[in-house]
Amino acid sequence: MCGVFGAFSASGRPVLEDVYLGLYALQHRGQESAGVSWIDHGNVHSLKGMGLVHNALDQGTLSSIPASSAIGHVRYSTFGGSLFQNAQPLAANYARGPVAIAHNGNLTNADGLMHYLENRGAIFQSTCDTETILHLMAHQAHKNPLDALMDALRRLEGAYSLAVLLEDRLVAARDPWGFRPLVLGVRDDVTYVASESCALDIVGAKLLRDVEPGEVVVIDAKGTLSLRIPMTPRKGFHCSFEYVYFARPDSVLDGRSVYQARKELGRRLALRCPCSEAELVAGMPDSGTLAALGYAEASACPFEIAVVRNRYVGRTFIQPTQRVREIGVRIKLNPNGEIFRDRDAVVVDDSIVRGTTASRVVSLIRDAGARSVHLRIASPPVRFPCYYGIDTPCSEELAAARMDLEALRREVGADSLAYLDETDLVESIGLPEEKLCTACFSGRYLEGGTCHDLEL
Amino acid sequence: MCGVFGAFSASGRPVLEDVYLGLYALQHRGQESAGVSWIDHGNVHSLKGMGLVHNALDQGTLSSIPASSAIGHVRYSTFGGSLFQNAQPLAANYARGPVAIAHNGNLTNADGLMHYLENRGAIFQSTCDTETILHLMAHQAHKNPLDALMDALRRLEGAYSLAVLLEDRLVAARDPWGFRPLVLGVRDDVTYVASESCALDIVGAKLLRDVEPGEVVVIDAKGTLSLRIPMTPRKGFHCSFEYVYFARPDSVLDGRSVYQARKELGRRLALRCPCSEAELVAGMPDSGTLAALGYAEASACPFEIAVVRNRYVGRTFIQPTQRVREIGVRIKLNPNGEIFRDRDAVVVDDSIVRGTTASRVVSLIRDAGARSVHLRIASPPVRFPCYYGIDTPCSEELAAARMDLEALRREVGADSLAYLDETDLVESIGLPEEKLCTACFSGRYLEGGTCHDLEL
Amino acid sequence: MCGVFGAFSASGRPVLEDVYLGLYALQHRGQESAGVSWIDHGNVHSLKGMGLVHNALDQGTLSSIPASSAIGHVRYSTFGGSLFQNAQPLAANYARGPVAIAHNGNLTNADGLMHYLENRGAIFQSTCDTETILHLMAHQAHKNPLDALMDALRRLEGAYSLAVLLEDRLVAARDPWGFRPLVLGVRDDVTYVASESCALDIVGAKLLRDVEPGEVVVIDAKGTLSLRIPMTPRKGFHCSFEYVYFARPDSVLDGRSVYQARKELGRRLALRCPCSEAELVAGMPDSGTLAALGYAEASACPFEIAVVRNRYVGRTFIQPTQRVREIGVRIKLNPNGEIFRDRDAVVVDDSIVRGTTASRVVSLIRDAGARSVHLRIASPPVRFPCYYGIDTPCSEELAAARMDLEALRREVGADSLAYLDETDLVESIGLPEEKLCTACFSGRYLEGGTCHDLEL
Amino acid sequence: MCGVFGAFSASGRPVLEDVYLGLYALQHRGQESAGVSWIDHGNVHSLKGMGLVHNALDQGTLSSIPASSAIGHVRYSTFGGSLFQNAQPLAANYARGPVAIAHNGNLTNADGLMHYLENRGAIFQSTCDTETILHLMAHQAHKNPLDALMDALRRLEGAYSLAVLLEDRLVAARDPWGFRPLVLGVRDDVTYVASESCALDIVGAKLLRDVEPGEVVVIDAKGTLSLRIPMTPRKGFHCSFEYVYFARPDSVLDGRSVYQARKELGRRLALRCPCSEAELVAGMPDSGTLAALGYAEASACPFEIAVVRNRYVGRTFIQPTQRVREIGVRIKLNPNGEIFRDRDAVVVDDSIVRGTTASRVVSLIRDAGARSVHLRIASPPVRFPCYYGIDTPCSEELAAARMDLEALRREVGADSLAYLDETDLVESIGLPEEKLCTACFSGRYLEGGTCHDLEL
Ligand SMILES: Nc1ncnc2c1ncn2[C@@H]1O[C@H](COP(=O)(O)OP(=O)(O)O)[C@@H](O)[C@H]1O
Ligand SMILES: Nc1ncnc2c1ncn2[C@@H]1O[C@H](COP(=O)(O)OP(=O)(O)O)[C@@H](O)[C@H]1O
Ligand SMILES: Nc1ncnc2c1ncn2[C@@H]1O[C@H](COP(=O)(O)OP(=O)(O)O)[C@@H](O)[C@H]1O
Ligand SMILES: Nc1ncnc2c1ncn2[C@@H]1O[C@H](COP(=O)(O)OP(=O)(O)O)[C@@H](O)[C@H]1O
Ligand code: SF4
Ligand code: SF4
Ligand code: SF4
Ligand code: SF4
Ligand SMILES: [Mg+2]
Ligand SMILES: [Mg+2]
Ligand SMILES: [Mg+2]
Ligand SMILES: [Mg+2]
Repeated sequence: MCGVFGAFSASGRPVLEDVYLGLYALQHRGQESAGVSWIDHGNVHSLKGMGLVHNALDQGTLSSIPASSAIGHVRYSTFGGSLFQNAQPLAANYARGPVAIAHNGNLTNADGLMHYLENRGAIFQSTCDTETILHLMAHQAHKNPLDALMDALRRLEGAYSLAVLLEDRLVAARDPWGFRPLVLGVRDDVTYVASESCALDIVGAKLLRDVEPGEVVVIDAKGTLSLRIPMTPRKGFHCSFEYVYFARPDSVLDGRSVYQARKELGRRLALRCPCSEAELVAGMPDSGTLAALGYAEASACPFEIAVVRNRYVGRTFIQPTQRVREIGVRIKLNPNGEIFRDRDAVVVDDSIVRGTTASRVVSLIRDAGARSVHLRIASPPVRFPCYYGIDTPCSEELAAARMDLEALRREVGADSLAYLDETDLVESIGLPEEKLCTACFSGRYLEGGTCHDLEL
Repeated sequence: MCGVFGAFSASGRPVLEDVYLGLYALQHRGQESAGVSWIDHGNVHSLKGMGLVHNALDQGTLSSIPASSAIGHVRYSTFGGSLFQNAQPLAANYARGPVAIAHNGNLTNADGLMHYLENRGAIFQSTCDTETILHLMAHQAHKNPLDALMDALRRLEGAYSLAVLLEDRLVAARDPWGFRPLVLGVRDDVTYVASESCALDIVGAKLLRDVEPGEVVVIDAKGTLSLRIPMTPRKGFHCSFEYVYFARPDSVLDGRSVYQARKELGRRLALRCPCSEAELVAGMPDSGTLAALGYAEASACPFEIAVVRNRYVGRTFIQPTQRVREIGVRIKLNPNGEIFRDRDAVVVDDSIVRGTTASRVVSLIRDAGARSVHLRIASPPVRFPCYYGIDTPCSEELAAARMDLEALRREVGADSLAYLDETDLVESIGLPEEKLCTACFSGRYLEGGTCHDLEL
Repeated sequence: MCGVFGAFSASGRPVLEDVYLGLYALQHRGQESAGVSWIDHGNVHSLKGMGLVHNALDQGTLSSIPASSAIGHVRYSTFGGSLFQNAQPLAANYARGPVAIAHNGNLTNADGLMHYLENRGAIFQSTCDTETILHLMAHQAHKNPLDALMDALRRLEGAYSLAVLLEDRLVAARDPWGFRPLVLGVRDDVTYVASESCALDIVGAKLLRDVEPGEVVVIDAKGTLSLRIPMTPRKGFHCSFEYVYFARPDSVLDGRSVYQARKELGRRLALRCPCSEAELVAGMPDSGTLAALGYAEASACPFEIAVVRNRYVGRTFIQPTQRVREIGVRIKLNPNGEIFRDRDAVVVDDSIVRGTTASRVVSLIRDAGARSVHLRIASPPVRFPCYYGIDTPCSEELAAARMDLEALRREVGADSLAYLDETDLVESIGLPEEKLCTACFSGRYLEGGTCHDLEL
Repeated sequence: MCGVFGAFSASGRPVLEDVYLGLYALQHRGQESAGVSWIDHGNVHSLKGMGLVHNALDQGTLSSIPASSAIGHVRYSTFGGSLFQNAQPLAANYARGPVAIAHNGNLTNADGLMHYLENRGAIFQSTCDTETILHLMAHQAHKNPLDALMDALRRLEGAYSLAVLLEDRLVAARDPWGFRPLVLGVRDDVTYVASESCALDIVGAKLLRDVEPGEVVVIDAKGTLSLRIPMTPRKGFHCSFEYVYFARPDSVLDGRSVYQARKELGRRLALRCPCSEAELVAGMPDSGTLAALGYAEASACPFEIAVVRNRYVGRTFIQPTQRVREIGVRIKLNPNGEIFRDRDAVVVDDSIVRGTTASRVVSLIRDAGARSVHLRIASPPVRFPCYYGIDTPCSEELAAARMDLEALRREVGADSLAYLDETDLVESIGLPEEKLCTACFSGRYLEGGTCHDLEL
């Protein structure tokens, strides 16, 4: 998963610091690397680095560069290893000028395109599917850059939400299925494009609208132009997992508030899978918190913030030494003994992927003295890998694909375990089913896909 | 404010990695620098660095050092500037051997002691009050190290919770008033000392008990010995602000759960300062969250997690450029428009210090469309500076010292503003008033103190 | 100017540390950046960095990588700015596998090739002429890598001595004119290629022979194969400036010892331009030292090491502050007052390029009390820029192109000034004139060339 | 061995950049760490770092600090391990104000003083003898800083040349025996103190005179004052090894040119130990070069620069891996095969310490084809350790202490081996014997000393 951000000032004001802040608000979408690109005197420039935005980029440097259009990217590796050369944006000066691309998603036909292009002389610098777009453009050197980009896009399959910088334009493009979110915002003379609306909030911009599936929005000094990728898919594929887990709760994506969706998932979970003996409802922070709050509300059972998540986890790399393995999940999550002692607890999380965290936390809660622990999951079982840009493991590593509900309950050590079903998921999000992707729950992919590890 | 941690293995097992993890759990107590010390072959060794634990210290290095007793420190500057030379533990080899000291608190008679010692030949390397303890010991070179330490301690005034390493001993000491917390824990053959119990949880240790005010606990291979500093204060001074704000909610200090205390503060606040038209209760994350939950419970008004705190704030240094000042508090806190729109909201925070954050967030919530914003504070007004190790500003910068309640309400822009009173504070914490410090609320100091900035 | 080095072990022994040491011995050929490449499991890997070999590369890392063939490069920028992206070797995985190239020289037709390739879809990552070779290969994706390389080479004009790594082969190639040196060496089962023989000495290898102009030597597990670039030039162009200045004195290039050549230049200079009143002969260290020794021998005048060169210059970047400009050349060179005082001195240098150093040193020697200073230059006047990989400035900046001998004498402030002539140069080197390039002295280029600054 | 430098501008001009350059010229005296100190608003400030001057210190930073008096130090460890905490200058703010000390030499009574001071409360931060001087001053807190310094100096035994910074004064002090050099220079209104005169040259200053043994020169805005340490030694002890090896050839120390001394050592060596069959004379660069030149002159045998010293050695740390041990001395020194082949050679070095380099170079020269190798040493055998600040090993590691001349000849593998005698040494230097230390050659120490390794 990744995050993209772009800004274009019609009056020529510097925007790189806004891109920095936008990326900072999108940091939860990728913590492996961060980068920005801008164009100056006909050349594209980039700054990139590994790690969090504030390690990877120097705010002071950025605030002193007077670029009036720029894009940025935070990366969480999917296709392509965890290497500096894969940090985005990808930028190049090709025959027709400078271009920079920031990509969120995953192309399902990248391999084929890569071989095709290599046999026509392309040299790939990275192992990242995004580079395919650059080479597709470069091999259309007779077209102007925007036409070359349009030509490249129609050859792509899979998920992409892009912020692209051409000579004097900022372009936002979203694949015809609408997998990954992409929104437009405005503040005075500056137009923004961002993966989530929370990144518009930080720069004080107003959310204008979502980029539509299959839409290419071209922003330049003259204004905004909307083009369409010539391709009409049979159904939409907005990623439902963005609402369940990935996006920030204060974002509004494709018209639906993530916060409301999560609380609604929790409320329906309380109705679908009640737990009469429960004395308290706790969420697994942070992903399970809102569903737990919804569950508590709907079940009239007290909500407690009973598991503390270390604030520094995620940014901190703790080395997996022998001692750290002994200590396990407690480095990240600490159940509050005072609250659990001698009580029957419902614990809510958004999903179970490998199942390791769940089983370790359940056991810590028992150690803390809980009488019983009832695990409730605010989405259907994750049984299939995602090929659209979210880094879920292969089926054989997915807990819910490896065992049935009862086996999984025993594995995680809960007194009871229950999941939402797919209808509840769709209705909680509040978008029509024919617009949503639920492939990692249902296996209903856009087209057949195999475990991507095999392809590498 | 700072955090200290120490570990001693009777069977000689390495403990430095546990000290690393303990500091990591105490990170919220100080983010300016971190350090550890241990003794090897009669020499004291230290590793220290600026910033967060994982930047300042290298876990890999620590896990490979076989020291069986060690101490650590996270620092948040109070007395003494923000310099590397002030990073703790302070360590030295003096005439009677190696010694290392980690100190949480603030000595009110440091200045006088320093002049006294300098005129007897002492050369101070740091501007940190803790160094006084080292020199007091060194000037008693005829006594053995433990006696020299005891002699030094009885000359100190003010707040100190110490973890001290002598040749083959770990010593935990707490000032006679008990300002700062200090707990003992045990796991197998390892004895731990820590500023808060949450740091025992992370290493899988059991909380044994608090170090008592005026107690010096000496831990060595033969066991544990308890000595007393020869000084009986008229009353106790456990810091009430630890419960209100500073400590982690999953800690238990001097027998009282911080979580329970915070929820109780919120509950009493709901009774003392109700708000009948409220449609939702939100906390200012993270410090106001639990009081808000208590408030919501006691007032039967829905609790919402309606302000999102950027997870990366605090570890990230955002430079205060022009643009960043424009954007202001939104870099850290983002009110969720979807929740506040057209509703009457109660917003709960733990305290108001300078008042800037409060007034900016109230205004953001209004922009987000709230019909009214009622601010509730889960402690009495902070009107006096703290001289005991918490870095509150001088009176002239304290909002509640500069204006009355109505003026402050207008300043922060709330529709109504109300505070808890001191009795509620004491009763919520649940410790007898004669054991608590409430000086920053009441002005009842241990002894008169003036603004410490003047003294420097 | 740059240096290249390559090693191939037929028995699979690791060679990267030898490449590190080889580069270290070639450090005088380029101090801007250093890099190495090797191939592992069909992928090419590189480590590169800015500055000296030991800053740019980590010996420890290299000695732990078990690659049995590898190449390396030290760079001194010529064509292409001073940027990390221009650090060599250039490496890529293209359609037909991995390839890495280390290049010493300068292609005179790079610009044209670049435009041609860009219009066929090539995206250039660097501004370095070497990348042209990679793209030429990639655009012949139907040929095997060695054939693609041969095809690329025959399209190149100008100077190139290359070490190339293909899948399981090390290739050494030298342009048909033989501009830059390139030697082969052997130690046990390891075959080496290097810019100068001094790099063979450091790894304990024996000098086998020079790679011939127009020769392509292919080294693999089966042995060594010699191919020829299909192109016969009218005359040879071994760079005479390598003997005069660039190469290390302990190298033997194209069969001639640099040491002997330099002493001979000095000896002839003594005969051609004697100085009867001289009481001592001093060289400008290090480039003028050997010619001065030859001059002293031939003129029977005492040789003194009378100017001391700071050992740390060259590796140290001294910032050109106001004070440093005041101090000038003395930061690098210090004439020894004790030796020059009240004496008539001959000072010998290899060449005069811009003339600044010469004039500043002459004036320091006068300040040191010399009665007279007679400057002798052990090569003809440098009047023309080099387009073949040595970074001489444009004519308008060359002192000898801007003024006649007498004007230059006054400019440098010497009592007398004399140069060697071209015939002496050629005879001192001892290679036939039709094999030598003397273009920067004579203007007789391979083909017309204009100031390369204009082309960028 | 170390180097010190200080500068004081009477008119308040900034001098830190001159200190940087002075240290740069003294770099050969110490490459382990470098540092500078200055006093600002009554506080002493320091910048220090490990490694070479340009790595340890940032010239840009220094040139922007407006201090008008400052001192600096380059360190080569003797007493006290190789640790950052031992980097000099040592600086502190003690009871009577700020003080900073840069020390070249070694105190022979440091141990005793340290114990004495520790028992009076001193806490030593470093393991460096220089800190003794600071604590001696601090324990005289009733005296003004200059008196306290004078009091401290008279308690010291052994070698010290100091640059000291007190509040508004620069002080230069040299021990009563005059072990290490120390010179004064002047440029306009700036007075300088430096270990060697070559450091005055770089800043364009004139050499005024040497600081005399036992002299303390106090430099302040009012001018220069000369005090004397109240102690008259029986004889002088100028280090003769400075002339033989340590100092830079362009320095003039205690009135004698190092260059002239070295050539004279070579000339006498030619007379004392001739070699009739020799066809060439080569020096071991750089330490043996000048003696070789003197030898060649006096014996009328051609001088050749036949061994090349890699310019980057010394600054570069080459890790002693297996491969590097195999390659050995060749990493640093490369005998030129072209010159040695089939010839009888005299090779001159300044001294033999452990003997490893000598024996390896002799064997390389034989491999290069020399018919015979005659080793000549331009000083007497080094048989005793130095306790006065030069880091020679204990007797048992000194080649000439472990075996007789013939055994040593066999060990190094030379056809013949010969040394200068002590009389020649003294006469070549040209100072009266009663002013020179020759203890490492003769064993005639100031007072008995044992191997200092034992004392640690
Ligand atoms: N600032 C924030 N405040 C609250 N939730 C956040 C914030 N940023 C990201 N999130 C949410 O955090 C969740 C991921 O955190 P968490 O559950 O702790 O991690 P994980 O499950 O990956 O270990 C996601 O659901 C995301 O929406
Ligand atoms: N891991 C954690 N989870 C929840 N709360 C925490 C955690 N660590 C520290 N805290 C609490 O966070 C509060 C401080 O955070 P916050 O209010 O965001 O900062 P501030 O008010 O200083 O800007 C304190 O009350 C502390 O108890
Ligand atoms: N290790 C070495 N020993 C002696 N000479 C060397 C060595 N390495 C390089 N050189 C020679 O040094 C010369 C360049 O040094 P120098 O004259 O000081 O630099 P420049 O003239 O570029 O300022 C070249 O002639 C080169 O052959
Ligand atoms: N810039 C310089 N030019 C010539 N000689 C120098 C210079 N700097 C230091 N020296 C001399 O170099 C010698 C030490 O170098 P060298 O013999 O190569 O090292 P070592 O013998 O310690 O391995 C000393 O005699 C010193 O006087
Ligand atoms: S498979 Fe799952 S995670 Fe992937 S896009 Fe579809 S819903 Fe989202
Ligand atoms: S003054 Fe306030 S913050 Fe300080 S110790 Fe007392 S209660 Fe705590
Ligand atoms: S022009 Fe001069 S420097 Fe260039 S290759 Fe020819 S001789 Fe060498
Ligand atoms: S012992 Fe040797 S090196 Fe030491 S001071 Fe005396 S002469 Fe110099
Ligand atoms: Mg989670
Ligand atoms: Mg807060
Ligand atoms: Mg030169
Ligand atoms: Mg030497």
